[in-house]
Amino acid sequence: MTAASHRSEHDLLGDRDVPAEAYWGIHTLRAKENFPITGTPISAYPHLIDALAAVKEAAARANEELGLLAPDKAAAIVEACREIRDGKLHDQFVVDVIQGGAGTSTNMNANEVVANRALELLGHAKGEYQHLHPNEDVNLGQSTNDVYPTAVKIATVFAVGGLLKAMAVLQDAFARKAVEFRDVLKMGRTQLQDAVPMTLGQEFSAYAVMLDEDRSRLAEAVELVHEINLGATAIGTGLNAPAGYAESARRHLAEITGLPLVTAANLVEATQDCGAFVQMSGVLKRIAVKLSKSCNDLRLLSSGPRAGLGEINLPPVQAGSSIMPGKVNPVIPEVVNQVAFEVIGNDVTITMAAEAGQLQLNAFEPIILHSLSESITHLRAACLTLAERCVEGITANTEVLRATVENSIGLVTALNPHIGYTAATAIAQEALTTGRGVAELVLEKGLLPADRLAALLSPERVAGTGAGADVPLPG
Amino acid sequence: MTAASHRSEHDLLGDRDVPAEAYWGIHTLRAKENFPITGTPISAYPHLIDALAAVKEAAARANEELGLLAPDKAAAIVEACREIRDGKLHDQFVVDVIQGGAGTSTNMNANEVVANRALELLGHAKGEYQHLHPNEDVNLGQSTNDVYPTAVKIATVFAVGGLLKAMAVLQDAFARKAVEFRDVLKMGRTQLQDAVPMTLGQEFSAYAVMLDEDRSRLAEAVELVHEINLGATAIGTGLNAPAGYAESARRHLAEITGLPLVTAANLVEATQDCGAFVQMSGVLKRIAVKLSKSCNDLRLLSSGPRAGLGEINLPPVQAGSSIMPGKVNPVIPEVVNQVAFEVIGNDVTITMAAEAGQLQLNAFEPIILHSLSESITHLRAACLTLAERCVEGITANTEVLRATVENSIGLVTALNPHIGYTAATAIAQEALTTGRGVAELVLEKGLLPADRLAALLSPERVAGTGAGADVPLPG
Amino acid sequence: MTAASHRSEHDLLGDRDVPAEAYWGIHTLRAKENFPITGTPISAYPHLIDALAAVKEAAARANEELGLLAPDKAAAIVEACREIRDGKLHDQFVVDVIQGGAGTSTNMNANEVVANRALELLGHAKGEYQHLHPNEDVNLGQSTNDVYPTAVKIATVFAVGGLLKAMAVLQDAFARKAVEFRDVLKMGRTQLQDAVPMTLGQEFSAYAVMLDEDRSRLAEAVELVHEINLGATAIGTGLNAPAGYAESARRHLAEITGLPLVTAANLVEATQDCGAFVQMSGVLKRIAVKLSKSCNDLRLLSSGPRAGLGEINLPPVQAGSSIMPGKVNPVIPEVVNQVAFEVIGNDVTITMAAEAGQLQLNAFEPIILHSLSESITHLRAACLTLAERCVEGITANTEVLRATVENSIGLVTALNPHIGYTAATAIAQEALTTGRGVAELVLEKGLLPADRLAALLSPERVAGTGAGADVPLPG
Amino acid sequence: MTAASHRSEHDLLGDRDVPAEAYWGIHTLRAKENFPITGTPISAYPHLIDALAAVKEAAARANEELGLLAPDKAAAIVEACREIRDGKLHDQFVVDVIQGGAGTSTNMNANEVVANRALELLGHAKGEYQHLHPNEDVNLGQSTNDVYPTAVKIATVFAVGGLLKAMAVLQDAFARKAVEFRDVLKMGRTQLQDAVPMTLGQEFSAYAVMLDEDRSRLAEAVELVHEINLGATAIGTGLNAPAGYAESARRHLAEITGLPLVTAANLVEATQDCGAFVQMSGVLKRIAVKLSKSCNDLRLLSSGPRAGLGEINLPPVQAGSSIMPGKVNPVIPEVVNQVAFEVIGNDVTITMAAEAGQLQLNAFEPIILHSLSESITHLRAACLTLAERCVEGITANTEVLRATVENSIGLVTALNPHIGYTAATAIAQEALTTGRGVAELVLEKGLLPADRLAALLSPERVAGTGAGADVPLPG
Repeated sequence: MTAASHRSEHDLLGDRDVPAEAYWGIHTLRAKENFPITGTPISAYPHLIDALAAVKEAAARANEELGLLAPDKAAAIVEACREIRDGKLHDQFVVDVIQGGAGTSTNMNANEVVANRALELLGHAKGEYQHLHPNEDVNLGQSTNDVYPTAVKIATVFAVGGLLKAMAVLQDAFARKAVEFRDVLKMGRTQLQDAVPMTLGQEFSAYAVMLDEDRSRLAEAVELVHEINLGATAIGTGLNAPAGYAESARRHLAEITGLPLVTAANLVEATQDCGAFVQMSGVLKRIAVKLSKSCNDLRLLSSGPRAGLGEINLPPVQAGSSIMPGKVNPVIPEVVNQVAFEVIGNDVTITMAAEAGQLQLNAFEPIILHSLSESITHLRAACLTLAERCVEGITANTEVLRATVENSIGLVTALNPHIGYTAATAIAQEALTTGRGVAELVLEKGLLPADRLAALLSPERVAGTGAGADVPLPG
Repeated sequence: MTAASHRSEHDLLGDRDVPAEAYWGIHTLRAKENFPITGTPISAYPHLIDALAAVKEAAARANEELGLLAPDKAAAIVEACREIRDGKLHDQFVVDVIQGGAGTSTNMNANEVVANRALELLGHAKGEYQHLHPNEDVNLGQSTNDVYPTAVKIATVFAVGGLLKAMAVLQDAFARKAVEFRDVLKMGRTQLQDAVPMTLGQEFSAYAVMLDEDRSRLAEAVELVHEINLGATAIGTGLNAPAGYAESARRHLAEITGLPLVTAANLVEATQDCGAFVQMSGVLKRIAVKLSKSCNDLRLLSSGPRAGLGEINLPPVQAGSSIMPGKVNPVIPEVVNQVAFEVIGNDVTITMAAEAGQLQLNAFEPIILHSLSESITHLRAACLTLAERCVEGITANTEVLRATVENSIGLVTALNPHIGYTAATAIAQEALTTGRGVAELVLEKGLLPADRLAALLSPERVAGTGAGADVPLPG
Repeated sequence: MTAASHRSEHDLLGDRDVPAEAYWGIHTLRAKENFPITGTPISAYPHLIDALAAVKEAAARANEELGLLAPDKAAAIVEACREIRDGKLHDQFVVDVIQGGAGTSTNMNANEVVANRALELLGHAKGEYQHLHPNEDVNLGQSTNDVYPTAVKIATVFAVGGLLKAMAVLQDAFARKAVEFRDVLKMGRTQLQDAVPMTLGQEFSAYAVMLDEDRSRLAEAVELVHEINLGATAIGTGLNAPAGYAESARRHLAEITGLPLVTAANLVEATQDCGAFVQMSGVLKRIAVKLSKSCNDLRLLSSGPRAGLGEINLPPVQAGSSIMPGKVNPVIPEVVNQVAFEVIGNDVTITMAAEAGQLQLNAFEPIILHSLSESITHLRAACLTLAERCVEGITANTEVLRATVENSIGLVTALNPHIGYTAATAIAQEALTTGRGVAELVLEKGLLPADRLAALLSPERVAGTGAGADVPLPG
Repeated sequence: MTAASHRSEHDLLGDRDVPAEAYWGIHTLRAKENFPITGTPISAYPHLIDALAAVKEAAARANEELGLLAPDKAAAIVEACREIRDGKLHDQFVVDVIQGGAGTSTNMNANEVVANRALELLGHAKGEYQHLHPNEDVNLGQSTNDVYPTAVKIATVFAVGGLLKAMAVLQDAFARKAVEFRDVLKMGRTQLQDAVPMTLGQEFSAYAVMLDEDRSRLAEAVELVHEINLGATAIGTGLNAPAGYAESARRHLAEITGLPLVTAANLVEATQDCGAFVQMSGVLKRIAVKLSKSCNDLRLLSSGPRAGLGEINLPPVQAGSSIMPGKVNPVIPEVVNQVAFEVIGNDVTITMAAEAGQLQLNAFEPIILHSLSESITHLRAACLTLAERCVEGITANTEVLRATVENSIGLVTALNPHIGYTAATAIAQEALTTGRGVAELVLEKGLLPADRLAALLSPERVAGTGAGADVPLPG
């Protein structure tokens, strides 16, 4: 090993060689070795890296403002952080997404990368920490225990923004279909048994409304994540952070991120509490449950082509079978179902991690971040895929749908007030016995004239109170 | 069998004998036989029975108002419902809490009990449905699919009211301890390792703040449950419900229950959607997670008496061992932990049931009601028990706590700015090597005068930013 | 209060009055007050009460054998235990099913009831513990920490026996239908899309095979539960239990229960470990998953009557709707689905409770017992209900099923080797375009003679390799 | 675009350009576009790729044996598969780990890669499928529905082999500590309260025994995964697979993999059933629960250094805090806890996916594979990390441990038989009042001579029945 290829760094456990070109240092090196769990580095979550850089920049600006950090050092740190937020140096964030230590390794990885890049900007070599130190300068006035939860929250806000947009795209796709299918009559079903008539537009409108509501719930949940504990330092008592630091850092961080961040009223509580993450995950699970239900419906309604319900057609996106030529399967709803199952499982992981917090800190926030990020980004991908590769191309088998209404026994329920209970019951009996349709029998027996029957089966009439609701088009 | 002991009733499957004294009828009888699952009847949830009676009363009043139900019938139904809400006839609600059929059996049980009691009030015998019919009169303009979810929501609102009060009692108990212990110095811990000093008051204040936040979240979640779908009938199209019915029924129901109920904008969506229940369960899980974490802490802090942390003493409430005399165990926190585990499991059950809904209805609302009721009532009992049988009687081992601060190495972090980094490091080394206390060494070496050290270790100073937060005393 | 109505008892917390007629004493009284959680007493689990009595009897016999307990005391304890196992005194087991304290309250409830009944048998009054003491005599050589897990295991073995029988009943019902439907041709489906032909008998045979496998897995899991830790006393070191006690107690307990019990090789491990319960719950979850899948299928196959798959008919067991006359719903499969969701939720509860064990004991076994008992008994009821009220009465719509095969495009896959790929593709295209059936087109074009086509569509031929498997009839 | 850079391929949806150098083809291309969910390709699971290659090779050999595939084609396919199993071409397996379609895209990715490599071996260009076709030759006699589950099972067996070895390494580490600490006396604790004495060796022995049992359970569960459904084709009827194919393919696959594979007795059932995966995941969850409990204990026992239990020291592997110099945290147990939480969440995901199977197939096996693979590989990494970076370096604070025994009140329970109940109670009282140690008081009062007391506190004596158990050293 030559001096050129490595540099030596020191920590409380001794000396270690670090690759000369690495912006990370000895703390990151040890963490890499200690946590060989998933092989996925934290750079897989770019929002987290950006959020860490934002926190480090805000802290540097606050420290300079309070006279604790020399202007040149502050400027170098700020510049390094901006580079990171511009997408540079992300490959230097190398510790594993599943790690022990409450996020210390992630925070130290950030401290070391920022410090070494700032050193370069100041004209020094990487590792010359006597000029600018990862802990004493970059981490000044901070602790992992306030930096990490704050960064995780900001990253979550960023990620949820993308999910909200994707949900709006999907809502829009469903809403357009609701309009397109507003005159398509069909049988409604409860408990998978024929119930009473409705329109296919109402069916799709319901999916749009669900997403509209879920977006509201998600927007509420993300508000809770704007409450940060920066300034709490180790346990919330603010030890070693000067007066005014928490407020100054919050102000800078809000400015940098453009987010209306607030500092928690009780920092001791805020430092140990994972409630906002549990709530967020609970809402993500709610979204997953509804998405999965909608996809179950799409798969059911498109079952067939001959031996199924055959009410709608999903657009074919790939051949469905390696052995049955011509078979096309509902692969897009299926992949969304699977993302939903993953999100529901992740909620249990997050729940257990939150419950396992002890005394002044929850040491298990890394797995919370990991599971939460996975849930948010996969849900986002699932919504976009479902909208673009499935919902937008759905067509209706209008004639099949109308025939099922006219043949259904359930139609009797709707005609009851118009032909009388006795006649209705007799018609139902005959339909059941003969297998013939209710509409057909009603006309044959002259119980209603054809135009009157048609009027009673008009989409407007059938849609009933449900038709009063506007189809929600987002934005 | 004599005529006196039974009456015969009829449904689409044929005739059956029903006990003469039973207010329930043939539909309830079949359901009792079909669902021999838990042995627990729905009367175990009195809030649900009251809610069903409220819905039936509201519907009768709306039907009378719209001229669909004769005043004498309406009056009899209303009177029967009020008796039920006064606590009478609850023993007539006999179908199993776990049942198939989307709540039809529960709704029919209510229809039959109300009809038979109303018949008696009108001077008829039970079973003389030609005078007043369970379906045609009591259930007029309704369907299980709007009655049942509406009743479940009202029952949930009632039950959550009790939980909110219990949480306030527990919050109050923690907050009083926070005040009592505000001057008790102790070591804070992160990752179970000694960190920096704080006060025991701050520790208890954090528990109070958690509950305060959780109450806010629960209050938000219960608002969503005020949205009902009464008037939707079978699938949300309002089939067979006259114009004005939904609004009239809602108005009466709001008046009867005193709740600000609103009708969902899209009834088709509202009839198939279980999102509000999933959200509610998610918030209950959040509460469970925090309660469990707090109880884990209480058990840890009171561990000992000799070989544990021994920081606090829980009041003894029963002998702890059948073999070790004198042993007292933290049985109250332990029972709360177990309730929390149950609530977390129930959340998975509710999630699966919600996901399994198909097309226009979720057939699995009975298990949602069951799990939700269990979670709410058990959490309520757990909060009250924890407050009254544990938290209120907690005492602190003040001297032990102070000694751990003075002996801790972590104290160095706090003294660092006052004695200098070099001296601090040397003291820490000596303390580690000799096993002596940091405070003792600082005084011995004359690094700080005793009064200055005492000032630095004053509770006000130690509590830091955390002390700025008021201890939240509920309402 | 008169002397007649109460007796005074004493424990380490002081004196309390106990109702004179109660067989339970002061420890039970305090536990009743401390755990007002569910309102359900442990007598709800009769297998547990019987198991506790069996353990107490075995311990008394071992203690007498080792000369530690006087023969008259032993005889009285044994007699009291036998009365309990005969179903007497169960109403004296009054502590809540959810309780703190690792089962101490349940064990003390048993000690007190056995002691007081034994006192009566010896001619003394209840409460005269100087003659025979709950702790010193009934609990002699025992600790809650070995008695309770041992009793829970025996209770589990008893309960699982009932579940295994119920599963065999359901398997038998499915297997009989498999035989009945062995010649009924139908379309198989993958991903809800038409695939290739099969028989309805094969469909039901698969359900029977699933249950057969699940019974094997359950039988394996219950074997693990035969390993007990009686003799471990407080933490597994056997403190205060004399040499030979563990083996003698095990021998007597095996004789009393008729079970091949073994003592764990490492009692320290066995006393803290809940692995066998986690495994048991995992297998119950597996059974729930399969049952739920089978019920989903039954609901899907019986969907209709007009606008669904309509392949089979479930027997009507109750009217299905309060508003739609004549509607019949699949309420029995629906209730089984809900039990499955409950079992899956209970598995999470049990998992969390098991994970929360600390050091030498798991304090959360009461909720494990509660959840496990619920899962086992509800699954048993679900299997019997499904067999008797649903599966046995299922009929097939044979003509509908055959028609879907003849009309299906998927039939082409089966005819491919016989009419050639080019002709097959052309037929498939024409069938898709015209909506006509493949069989019809093949005959019309003379590609196959009618008898040859019939032969290719014979159930034996279609069933293929699957037909080689015998339908498993249990026992 | 030039002819050199792309080739055109065709499927039922039309033509698409594929990169000329790609071994995958049009089906893979569409799948890549359809499932942009995680960004992680299936090559992340090398065991799966190897297993797919093994299945394709076995099928080719069986097809050749039965005269269905020309020897030169078979030889080329076999050679291509062997290259893959040698680690080549893994980068060509590019479809997303979360995908719709029951594994069709994974199977088609394999068919295309094998076909194109085989074409090259035969001297043809990639894409010249007229010479050797992905479906007609590589997939001959197969369906995704038998290939994919079979490959997933083989991959699982391979992966579990690695986990079993890692568990043995961890068991060994615990067992060595059990031997090392066999004479270290300490207080046992139940419910976190001081109980009775034991040895630290017994504590570690219990962890080793837990792993030993869990390895047995895992070995049993993996046996179930040896049952495959190759030869089932689309739905288990073996359509288009000739007589003898299933047996021949199984025989070759067993030979290639070295595994004792068996063909399921009922292929229809086997094709739709995910029971073996649910069971496997349940056992992984059991392992996770126990590992997490052990790590909770390690963190608790090493808490301190001053304000905790301080019984053992974990080896420092990295600096613990970015703000508190010298703090060392239990990061290795913490990361293991987090893996355990992930595994428990994955079990819920797998459960939901298994429950969602419908009729003849479970379309959600890709997420089952994904979650199962994650659980197995992360558990393996966690076991190795825990053994090598934590357990092996643990040291005991022997003096502290002995002092807690001598000072404990619980010691009275052990001395009870030797100094009499009255004296014992008095000593306990005095110890409680004065804070002095029981051993000290017993000696001071002359209740026991020093050598007798020492004998009673000898490790052999204290370990009791637990000492009889050998410490299990794996194979």
